[in-house]
Amino acid sequence: MNPVFDALPTTVFETMSRLAQAHGAINLGQGFPDDPGPADVREAAARALVDGPNQYPPMMGLPALRHAIAAHYARHQGLALDPDTEVMVTSGATEALAGALLALIEPGDEVVLFAPMYDAYLPLVRRAGGVPRIVNLAPPAFRLDEAALAQAFSDRTKLVLLNNPLNPSATLFGRDDLALLARFCCRHEVIALCDEVWEHVVFDGARHLPLMAFPGMRERTVKIGSAGKIFSLTGWKVGFVTAEARLMRVLAKAHQFLTFTTPPNLQAAVASGLAKDEAWFEAMRAGYARSRDRLAAGLAVRGFTVLPAAATWFLNIDIRPLGATDDVAFCEALVTRHGVAAIPVSAFYPDGGMRHLVRLCFAKADGTLDAALDRMAGVA
Amino acid sequence: MNPVFDALPTTVFETMSRLAQAHGAINLGQGFPDDPGPADVREAAARALVDGPNQYPPMMGLPALRHAIAAHYARHQGLALDPDTEVMVTSGATEALAGALLALIEPGDEVVLFAPMYDAYLPLVRRAGGVPRIVNLAPPAFRLDEAALAQAFSDRTKLVLLNNPLNPSATLFGRDDLALLARFCCRHEVIALCDEVWEHVVFDGARHLPLMAFPGMRERTVKIGSAGKIFSLTGWKVGFVTAEARLMRVLAKAHQFLTFTTPPNLQAAVASGLAKDEAWFEAMRAGYARSRDRLAAGLAVRGFTVLPAAATWFLNIDIRPLGATDDVAFCEALVTRHGVAAIPVSAFYPDGGMRHLVRLCFAKADGTLDAALDRMAGVA
Ligand SMILES: CSCCC(=O)C(=O)O
Ligand SMILES: CSCCC(=O)C(=O)O
Repeated sequence: MNPVFDALPTTVFETMSRLAQAHGAINLGQGFPDDPGPADVREAAARALVDGPNQYPPMMGLPALRHAIAAHYARHQGLALDPDTEVMVTSGATEALAGALLALIEPGDEVVLFAPMYDAYLPLVRRAGGVPRIVNLAPPAFRLDEAALAQAFSDRTKLVLLNNPLNPSATLFGRDDLALLARFCCRHEVIALCDEVWEHVVFDGARHLPLMAFPGMRERTVKIGSAGKIFSLTGWKVGFVTAEARLMRVLAKAHQFLTFTTPPNLQAAVASGLAKDEAWFEAMRAGYARSRDRLAAGLAVRGFTVLPAAATWFLNIDIRPLGATDDVAFCEALVTRHGVAAIPVSAFYPDGGMRHLVRLCFAKADGTLDAALDRMAGVA
Repeated sequence: MNPVFDALPTTVFETMSRLAQAHGAINLGQGFPDDPGPADVREAAARALVDGPNQYPPMMGLPALRHAIAAHYARHQGLALDPDTEVMVTSGATEALAGALLALIEPGDEVVLFAPMYDAYLPLVRRAGGVPRIVNLAPPAFRLDEAALAQAFSDRTKLVLLNNPLNPSATLFGRDDLALLARFCCRHEVIALCDEVWEHVVFDGARHLPLMAFPGMRERTVKIGSAGKIFSLTGWKVGFVTAEARLMRVLAKAHQFLTFTTPPNLQAAVASGLAKDEAWFEAMRAGYARSRDRLAAGLAVRGFTVLPAAATWFLNIDIRPLGATDDVAFCEALVTRHGVAAIPVSAFYPDGGMRHLVRLCFAKADGTLDAALDRMAGVA
C-alpha cells in the first residue's frame, strides 16, 4: 500500500455527512447547498442526455464550454485566455488539483502551502513527491505575511498552492496579499496553483481578484474554477483549468490519464449557464449573503461568537467563549446530541493545532437554518 | 514539470479523433459506438437531473448503484461482493486505474505489465513510482506463457496489471491463462489489478472469467468495470471498482482526492441499467458481433488480412500482405488520403516494436461500416 494513502483518514466532509445521516442531523458540515441549481441549466443537461451524443467529447473539453469559460473570465475578471490552448475541462476541481500536482511536481520539489487548507492538498502534494512547506495564517484575519513567506520560499520551491477565497476561514485575499505573493513567485520562479473555486461566492460588494492578473503571474499561474460552486450543483463535478499553453501542455497529459474527459451533457449545460448575465450572478451572491446573515444573526442571538464571512458558503464560530477547548469533541456532541452537523476547523490544519473554530455551512433554505438554530439553542 | 508527463505525447485516441475531424474521415479509431445507448437509461439520467438532488453523493457511490453492481456481478460472474465495503464507483475506469496504481504502489515496487497495453498504463505506473516489468505477448494468440511470467515476477513484484478481454488484440484470456497467472500472484503475494472493462463484450458464446474468481485471488484482486462499455455510453465516465475491504480501504483514499465522487444522476441511471435481464446483454453482444462480421467480411472481400476478434469493439488487420511495414505511416495515409481513421497497434507497445497491425473499431452503424469499406477499397 502506498503509505501516503494508507495512513489517511476518510475525509472529514464524508465522515460528518455519514454521521449526520446516522443521527438524523441537519447537515451544515459538508459544503453543499439546499438550492437545487438553475432549472434551465439542469434541463439543458437533461436534453443533451436524451438527444446525445453521449460518447467521449474531446479530452480538453467541449469547444463550446472552453469558449464559454474564456468569455466568462474575460467578462468577469478581465483575463484574456485562448480557449483552444489555455482552457481545459476536468471532472471537478479535485481532479484539476490532483492532475496539476502530479503534472508539475518532481519528487523533492518544495511546495508552499497555507494553513488552514483543504484536506486534499497535503496528501496530494506528498503523493506527487513534493516536500511541503506550510505557512500558518493567523486568525482572525488570515492574511499573508512577508516574513513568513520569506521563510517558506527557497530556491527549491517549485509551486505554491493558494485557495482564494479561503475555505474554511471565509476570507478573501486582497490586492496587497496577492501582490506580495506574486513578488515571491516571480523572484523564486515559482508556479502558483490557484484554487479559486469560490471566486464568484464573494459578498458585500467585494471582488475576487485572480492571482493570474498580477504582474509576472500570467505565465506562471494555473487557475482552477468549479461549475459546481457557481451553479450550486456540487454533484456535477465539472471543473475548469486555465493556464498558459506551455503549462497546459503538461497539465493535459495528467488529465488524459486521470479521467480523460467529463460527461458531455453536463459540459454543454455548464456552457449555457456561463453565459448568464451579471444580474444572475448578483442575485446568486445576494441570496447566499442573506442566508449568511440569517444564520449569523440567529447564532449571535443565541449567544454564539460568530466570525465574519466575506466569501464561500461557510461561517465560523469561536467556541472558546462557550468554555469549549476541543472543536472535534464539540462537533461530535453537536451532531450526536443536538442533531446538527458541522466541521471542526482543526481538520484543515495538518498539525491539528487550531482547536477553537467550528465551520457551519449557511448555503441552506431558511427553514433548514432556522431548524438548525433551534437545535443549537441549548448549546451556548 | 514532472518528467513522466512532460515527455508524454497526446494519447493516440485523441490524436486520431482530431485528425479524423480535420480530414472529414470516418472515425474507426477511438473506441466509441454509433449506438446512442439505451433510451431508458438515458431518460432515467435526464429525469434525475431535473428532479435532483444534484449535490455530492456519498464518495463510495450511490448505495443503489453499489448494490446494483454487487447484484450484477453475482448474477453474471458468480462473485459475492459486499456492496457496502467491497464496491466503489469512480469517474470512469481511467480514474479507477489511476487511483489504484497511486494507492497500491510504493516507489520502487515492481509492476508486471503485458504488451500490447492500453497507453495509460505505463505512464501511470511510472508516475506512481513503480518499476515496470513488461511481458510481450506473442501474436496472433496473445497467450500467457509460464517461462515469461517466471522471468517477470520476483520478490519485488507488488502488482500485475491485466486487461482481459485484451484491447487492442481483441483476445480473451481463458481458464488456463488465468489459472497460471493466479498461481504466480499467490506464490509471490502479488496484487492483480484487472482492467475488465470489456467483460460483457465477448462473442461467439464465449464467457469472460474474472481473475478474482480463481483460487487464492479473491483477497488480492482489484477488478475494474465500466458502465460506458456496457451501455455504449462512453462519455458518461462511470466506472466500478471491486475489491476486498482491506484493499478497498486504501483505494477509497486515492479516490477521495482524485475526483471524490461521480454525478449522481448518471449513477442512478446506471443502477437501473444494470438490472437489465440476460436477454438485453445477449442482444447487445449479438449486435456487436454482427457489426464485427460485417466489417471483417467487407475487409476480407477487399483483400485485407483480418485477424479474429473474440471480444471488444475492435478487430485488427495485418498490413504485411499489403507490403506495408509501418503501421503509423499506414494509418496516416489512411486518414489523410482515404478518409478512414484507425489506430496503429504500435501505440500499444512501449517499445513501439510491433508495426504490422492496425486496429479498426466496428461498433458502428452498418452505413458507417459500409462507407468506410468503400473508402478503403483502393488500399489493399
Ligand atoms: C468534496 S466534499 C467538501 C466540500 C467542500 O468544499 C467543503 O465542505 O469544504
Ligand atoms: C479514452 S479514449 C480510448 C477509448 C478506448 O478504449 C480505445 O479506443 O481503446
